[in-house]
Amino acid sequence: HSIGGTNRIGSMHLMPVSSPYPTKNWLQPKRYKAHLMGTQYVYDFPELFRQAVENAWSKIVKTQPGLNDSKPAQGECIEYNELVLDDHDKLTEVSREPGTNTCGMVGWVINARTPEYPKGRKFVVVANDITYKIGSFGPKEDHFFNKCTELARSLGIPRIYLSANSGARLGLAEELIPHFKVAWNDESKPDSGFKYLYLDDEAKKRFEDGASRDVITETVTEDGEKRHKIVAIVGAEDGLGVECLRGSGLIAGATSRAYNDIFTVTLITCRSIGIGAYLVRLGQRAVQIEGQPIILTGAGALNNLLGREVYTSNLQLGGTQIMYRNGVSHMTANDDFAGVSKIVDWLSFVPAQRNLPVPITPSTDSWDREVIYTPPNKQPHDVRWLIGGKQDEDGFQPGLFDKDSFVETLGGWARTVVVGRARLGGIPMGVIAVETRTVENVTPADPANPDSVEQVTNEAGGVWYPNSAFKTAQAINDFNHGEQLPLMILANWRGFSGGQRDMYNEVLKYGSYIVDALVQFQQPIFVYIPPFGELRGGSWVVVDPTINPVAMEMYADVEARAGVLEPEGIIGIKYKKEKQLETMARLDSTYAALKKEASDKNLSQEQLENVKARMTEREKQLLPIYTQISIQFADLHDRAGRMKAKGTIREAIEWKNARRFFYWRVRRRLNEEYIIKRMAAVEKTQNTDSGSAATLDARKQYLRLLAAWSGISNFDRNDRDVATWYEDNATTITAKVEQMKADSVSREMASLLTGD
Amino acid sequence: HSIGGTNRIGSMHLMPVSSPYPTKNWLQPKRYKAHLMGTQYVYDFPELFRQAVENAWSKIVKTQPGLNDSKPAQGECIEYNELVLDDHDKLTEVSREPGTNTCGMVGWVINARTPEYPKGRKFVVVANDITYKIGSFGPKEDHFFNKCTELARSLGIPRIYLSANSGARLGLAEELIPHFKVAWNDESKPDSGFKYLYLDDEAKKRFEDGASRDVITETVTEDGEKRHKIVAIVGAEDGLGVECLRGSGLIAGATSRAYNDIFTVTLITCRSIGIGAYLVRLGQRAVQIEGQPIILTGAGALNNLLGREVYTSNLQLGGTQIMYRNGVSHMTANDDFAGVSKIVDWLSFVPAQRNLPVPITPSTDSWDREVIYTPPNKQPHDVRWLIGGKQDEDGFQPGLFDKDSFVETLGGWARTVVVGRARLGGIPMGVIAVETRTVENVTPADPANPDSVEQVTNEAGGVWYPNSAFKTAQAINDFNHGEQLPLMILANWRGFSGGQRDMYNEVLKYGSYIVDALVQFQQPIFVYIPPFGELRGGSWVVVDPTINPVAMEMYADVEARAGVLEPEGIIGIKYKKEKQLETMARLDSTYAALKKEASDKNLSQEQLENVKARMTEREKQLLPIYTQISIQFADLHDRAGRMKAKGTIREAIEWKNARRFFYWRVRRRLNEEYIIKRMAAVEKTQNTDSGSAATLDARKQYLRLLAAWSGISNFDRNDRDVATWYEDNATTITAKVEQMKADSVSREMASLLTGD
Repeated sequence: HSIGGTNRIGSMHLMPVSSPYPTKNWLQPKRYKAHLMGTQYVYDFPELFRQAVENAWSKIVKTQPGLNDSKPAQGECIEYNELVLDDHDKLTEVSREPGTNTCGMVGWVINARTPEYPKGRKFVVVANDITYKIGSFGPKEDHFFNKCTELARSLGIPRIYLSANSGARLGLAEELIPHFKVAWNDESKPDSGFKYLYLDDEAKKRFEDGASRDVITETVTEDGEKRHKIVAIVGAEDGLGVECLRGSGLIAGATSRAYNDIFTVTLITCRSIGIGAYLVRLGQRAVQIEGQPIILTGAGALNNLLGREVYTSNLQLGGTQIMYRNGVSHMTANDDFAGVSKIVDWLSFVPAQRNLPVPITPSTDSWDREVIYTPPNKQPHDVRWLIGGKQDEDGFQPGLFDKDSFVETLGGWARTVVVGRARLGGIPMGVIAVETRTVENVTPADPANPDSVEQVTNEAGGVWYPNSAFKTAQAINDFNHGEQLPLMILANWRGFSGGQRDMYNEVLKYGSYIVDALVQFQQPIFVYIPPFGELRGGSWVVVDPTINPVAMEMYADVEARAGVLEPEGIIGIKYKKEKQLETMARLDSTYAALKKEASDKNLSQEQLENVKARMTEREKQLLPIYTQISIQFADLHDRAGRMKAKGTIREAIEWKNARRFFYWRVRRRLNEEYIIKRMAAVEKTQNTDSGSAATLDARKQYLRLLAAWSGISNFDRNDRDVATWYEDNATTITAKVEQMKADSVSREMASLLTGD
Repeated sequence: HSIGGTNRIGSMHLMPVSSPYPTKNWLQPKRYKAHLMGTQYVYDFPELFRQAVENAWSKIVKTQPGLNDSKPAQGECIEYNELVLDDHDKLTEVSREPGTNTCGMVGWVINARTPEYPKGRKFVVVANDITYKIGSFGPKEDHFFNKCTELARSLGIPRIYLSANSGARLGLAEELIPHFKVAWNDESKPDSGFKYLYLDDEAKKRFEDGASRDVITETVTEDGEKRHKIVAIVGAEDGLGVECLRGSGLIAGATSRAYNDIFTVTLITCRSIGIGAYLVRLGQRAVQIEGQPIILTGAGALNNLLGREVYTSNLQLGGTQIMYRNGVSHMTANDDFAGVSKIVDWLSFVPAQRNLPVPITPSTDSWDREVIYTPPNKQPHDVRWLIGGKQDEDGFQPGLFDKDSFVETLGGWARTVVVGRARLGGIPMGVIAVETRTVENVTPADPANPDSVEQVTNEAGGVWYPNSAFKTAQAINDFNHGEQLPLMILANWRGFSGGQRDMYNEVLKYGSYIVDALVQFQQPIFVYIPPFGELRGGSWVVVDPTINPVAMEMYADVEARAGVLEPEGIIGIKYKKEKQLETMARLDSTYAALKKEASDKNLSQEQLENVKARMTEREKQLLPIYTQISIQFADLHDRAGRMKAKGTIREAIEWKNARRFFYWRVRRRLNEEYIIKRMAAVEKTQNTDSGSAATLDARKQYLRLLAAWSGISNFDRNDRDVATWYEDNATTITAKVEQMKADSVSREMASLLTGD
C-alpha cells in the first residue's frame, strides 16, 4: 500500500535511480507571491477541486452508505491534464511540471468522478497566473484563454474561470528610451519646450531591421540635419497597448457566446480588473471570494482623477458588499477552498455535457410523500420553507423539494425574489419563489459625492420591483443557458410596483426581460401558485404559459387566487355601494320592507323622512357586512376552479400532493423532451421559435405518435406510467426514431430529385 | 376629373340610384369619445398615414424635382384594407365601413408608395379602439392582436401598434348578483357576519345548463335545507378575469418574438395601461404623444394603496418626462399626426421586408465630397456636428452623413451617448456617437417618499455610465432587429465610469450588454475613432472587431488615440521620475556633466553637496519639460500607425476622406453580405455563431470565389470597383450561385445515399 492512498504508477516509475527527485520547493517563491495577493498559486487549484469532490463523496456516503461502492479510491476522484498549445496552435493535454507555463494563463481539463457521474465528467478550468506579469492579459494570454473557451464549447462541457489579474497588459517600448532625441524649440534653452521626438540615422537603423519596423518615422531636415521624426512607436515586444485590447475584445466576445452555449462560472479568487471584471460578468455566474474586488479602475487612479482621496481601497469599489448586493456575484465564499467547493456543488446540478439529461442525484427523500409545511394565510413567512421545509421545535416539516437540496444564489440582490437550485426526488430544478415579507434595500452613499447619504427603501413582499424583475430574468437565463434545468416558479405576486420611482427606474424594461427570457427557455417550466398565493394583472401576464407554450405549464393550489385586480379593487369598479344596497334590499327583509314603505306615494313628508332615516340606519349597520359579501362574491371569481374552467391552468394541484405530482410530471416531461428533440432533429422541424404554429403542430404530431407507440390510456395525464414507459422502452423508441430517420431520408431524396 | 383628385372607381359605382349614401355622421359620437380621451378615433388613423406619406413626397420633391415622375397622384400614395377574421379564424383583407368592428382591436394592411418604394411597401397596423369597452384587452382583442402580429411576421413586414387602452378587461358575473344567497352566522342578526354564499336549487338550475357551468358549487345540507355552496364563479361572459391575463400573456410573448424578427414600433396615442404598457416595451421602439401616459397602475389606485394622495395624475407616473427620460420612449410627438409622421419617417430607413436590401433614398448630398467640419482638439463640441455638419455664421460645414438626414432617437435618456439613424450618400445607417460635453442627469424626487429630493449628477463626456452603456446596447439591438441597418460607431470613449456609485449601479452588466448585442449583429459595423477621439481600456474592449469578426471593422483617423491607459497614466507606471531623470542625464549636457561630477569620488562633502544642489536645481527647472517629453513618448504609442501595424485597425482613414471611403465600403459590404448569405444558404453553412471558425472559413472561401469571379485586382481594398461589379453583374452572380446550388444538391444526394 503506497503513501497517499493510491496504487497508481508514479512519475518516477522506471526512471534511472539517479534521476533527481523534483522537489516542490522551487515553486515556493511563486506560491508566496500568490499568497501575498490573497490567492493560491494557480497550480495548486486542481488539488482544491480534488478535495472538494472528495468531500462531496464523503457527505453523500454518510446519508447513503450504498453509494460507497461507486466511490473512487481515496485521492482518485479527479484526474487532470494541463492544456498546452502545440506547434500547430492546437490545445493538447499534457502532464507537465507545475509552474512551467510560459504565459500568464493556465488551463486544465479535469475529469472528475462525482456522485452524479461516478464514471467521470469533464470540465475545462482556465486560470490567470497572478505571479506572471501580475496576471495581466497580453495577446498570448488572450489567445490561450480563447482556445480554452473554444475547447470547452466544442466538447460542450463546463468552463470554469479562476480570475486573478490586473487587466490588460500595458507597456512602453523600453528599448527606445535610451535612443530617442528631442527637437528643442531653442537648443540652448531646453526649458522653453520642444517640438517633437526623433531618431538619428544610426538609431533608426537599429530599430528598422528588414521587414520589422518597431518605430514609424518620417524624414525631416532641420538645420541641414537629416532627422527621423517619430510618428508612432510600435515597439519590439508584443503586448504594450491596443493589441492587448484587441485580445481582450476577442475573449469578451468568446465569453459572451460561451454563456449562451455551455455552463460558464467564474471564481474571483483575487482582484479582477478591467477585462478581468468584464470576463466575470460576461460569463455571468460568479463566486466571489471575500476581500477580492471586481473593479474597472483602481482606487488610486480614481483618486488621481478626482483630485482628492475619495476611495481608500479597491474593496470599496468592487468588494462583495457591492458586487453581491447588485447581483454581479451569484455567491460569496470566505476562501478559495470554499469557493471551489461551491462551484463543485453547482456542477452537481448541471449536465456533464451540452444536451445530456440532467444529472439525477440518488436521494434519500422519497418522491412519495406529502408536502407537510404549508404557508399560513396572509401571514408573512419565509418562502424558503416551502422549498426546503421548516425545522422548528416541533421537528421538521418537509417542503416541496428534497431536504437540504436547495442552494440559493443571488441572495444578496433584490431580496424580494428568491432563486436557486434544488432537487425533486433527485431531479435538479431551477427554483424561483417570492419573498412574502417586506425587505429593506440599502443603497450605499456615494463616497465621491459628499451630499449623498445611504438610502434605505422598503420593498414589499409579493411585488415585482425593477431589481427583482431583473433578478427573475437573470435566474431564468442562468437555468436555461448551459445548465439546461427544468424550472419551478412558485408564483405569488400581486403585480409590478408602478409608483413613479419604479416607473422611472425602468420597471417596464426589466419586466419585459422576464418575457424575453421565458420565450427562449428550452426545458419544462412549471408555474405554480402556492396555497394563499396570488397572481394578479401584470405579474400573471409575464409568466403565462402562452408565452412559451412548448415549455410552460401553469398550476394552482385550490387555495390560490388569481385575477386582474384584487377583490377590493374590483368591487370599487364593478360592485359599488349602490349595487351593494340593491343586494341588501334583495336579501334583508327589514331593509326591503323599509324600501317598499319609502316608495309608498301616500306617505307624508314627515313619515318619508322617518322611513328614510331608518333605512339609513339599517344601511349603516349592514353595509360593512354587505361590502364583505361583495368582496367574497368577487373573490369567488379568483378561484382555481375558474382558472381551470377557463383553461388558464392545466390543473388545480393541492399543495400537499404537489411533490408526487410534479416529480412524475417533470420526469415525464424531461424524458419526453429528449425524445421529441431527437424526432425533430430527424424530421428537421427544429425551430428556434417555440411559439410558432409549425413547431406546435409538429410537436402535437410527435406526441400522438408516442401515445400510439406506448398504447397508454389517458396518455396526457398518466405521467407516471408514461415516464416509466419511456425509460423502460428506450431501445424500442430509439429504433422507431431511426425508422423515422430512414423515412425522412427517402422523403428528402424525393424532394431533392423533384428539385426546387 | 373627379373630386378628391383621383380617378378610381368609388364605392357607389354601379349601385342602384336609390341606395342610401352612407354618411359619416354616425361615427361622430365615437370620434367625440376618442377626442375626449385625447386621441383620434381609430378608423381615422389610416388617413393620417396617407397625409404623412404625402408630406414625405412633397418634402423630397422640393429638393429633387426629378422624383416628381414617380410621385403617386394626389391622395393615392396609400391604399389600405381592414383585417378581419373569417369563419376559419384566418385574417382576410376586406374593405368595410369604418366602425363596424365587433371587438376593441382593429387592424389594417397598408400599402404605401413612399419615395424609397414608389411601387409600394406594405405594413400591418394594429390598434386599440378606445371607444369599445374603454379599449380593454379581452380574449377576442388578444386573439386578434396575435393574429395581426403573426401576419406581419409571416410576411416579414413592419408591425405598427397604435396603443390606446385600459389594460386587461375585468368584470364580475353580473347575472349572478340577483340570485345568490348568504348563509348567515345568525339568521336573525345579519350584522354578526356570514359563512358563505350559496344558490338554491332553482338558481342553480338556471346557471347550470347542460355542459356549461357558469358557477361551481358543492352541495351542503344545513338545517335540513339542501344548499349549493358557491366554490367558484365562472360567469357566462368570456373576459372577466384570468382569461384576459392569459390572452395578455399570449400577445406579450408574441411581441417579444416579433421584435427579434420584424420591425416593431408603437405609437402611444392615448393612455397605455398594464398589458398596454408591456406591449409598448416588448415592441421596444416607441413614439409617445405628449400628455399620454404609459403606466402599470393608475394614480388613484396607487393613492388608495398608499393611503394618501401622493399622485395627482397618471402623467406623473408615465408621462414623457418619465418615459422619454428613461429610454422607454424613443421619441415624443406633440400630436397624433406628428407621431404618425415620425413613424413614417422611421420606416424610410427600414427595408420593406425582412432580409431585403436597405432602402436607398436618392440623395442630393454627393458621396464625392470631403468632410468639412472637423472637431477641435480637446475642446467640447456637439458631436452631432460630426454626423450632420455644422451651420454657423460662416455657412454650412458638412459632416460625415448626408445633410439633414440624421434623426436622433432616445435623445432624452443617457445623453452622454448620441444614437440615431442617418444616410451616407442615401444609404441608411445606424449611428452611435459620443457626447464630449458634460451633461446633467436629473433624477426626479419620488413623490411617495417625502425624504427624497431631486438628484442632479454630472456625467462627463467620453465616459460610459450604466445608463449610456445600456443605451448603446439598446441602439445596437434596435438597428439589428427588424431594421437590419449597417452601423457606424464614432468611438470616442475614455473608458467606463468605475466609481463606487456606478459599480453598484451595475455598470458591468450594461457594459456586457454592448458585447452581447454586437455578437448578434448581422450587418456591417464600422467602428471609427474620429480626429482627436480616443478609445481606452475597457471601452476599446467592448467594441473590438474580434467580438464579431464577420460584421465588424475598425478604423481610426490619423489624429486619433488608443491604448490601455492615457499617457499620463502610463508614465505613472512605466516612465516614472527616476527614468525621466535618466533621460535628462542622456540628453541634457549640463545635467549630465553635473551627474558625472557628482560621481567623482574625490569630491569633498561640501563639493558634493554643492553639486547635488545644482543638480536638484536643474532637475526642478527641467523636470516639467521631461515629463512632457515622457508623455509625448508614451503618446507616440497610441497613434493610428501603431494600431495599423499591430493589425488592430483595418486602415487609418483621414476624417476628411471618411465619407468617400465609407460610402463605397458600406455599399460594397452590403452587396457582398447579401451574396454571401445566399451562398451560405445554398451550401447550408449558415451559422448563428458569427465567431465560429467554421463560419469564418466558409466566408473566406466565398470571398475567394467572388474575387476569382470578378477578377478585380486588389479585391480586398478596391471597394468602389467591387461594389460596382456586384451591382452590374447581379445576373451573372445569381447564375453562379444557382450552379453552386446544383453542386450542393448532388453532394447532398451523395451523402444521403452513403448514409450516416
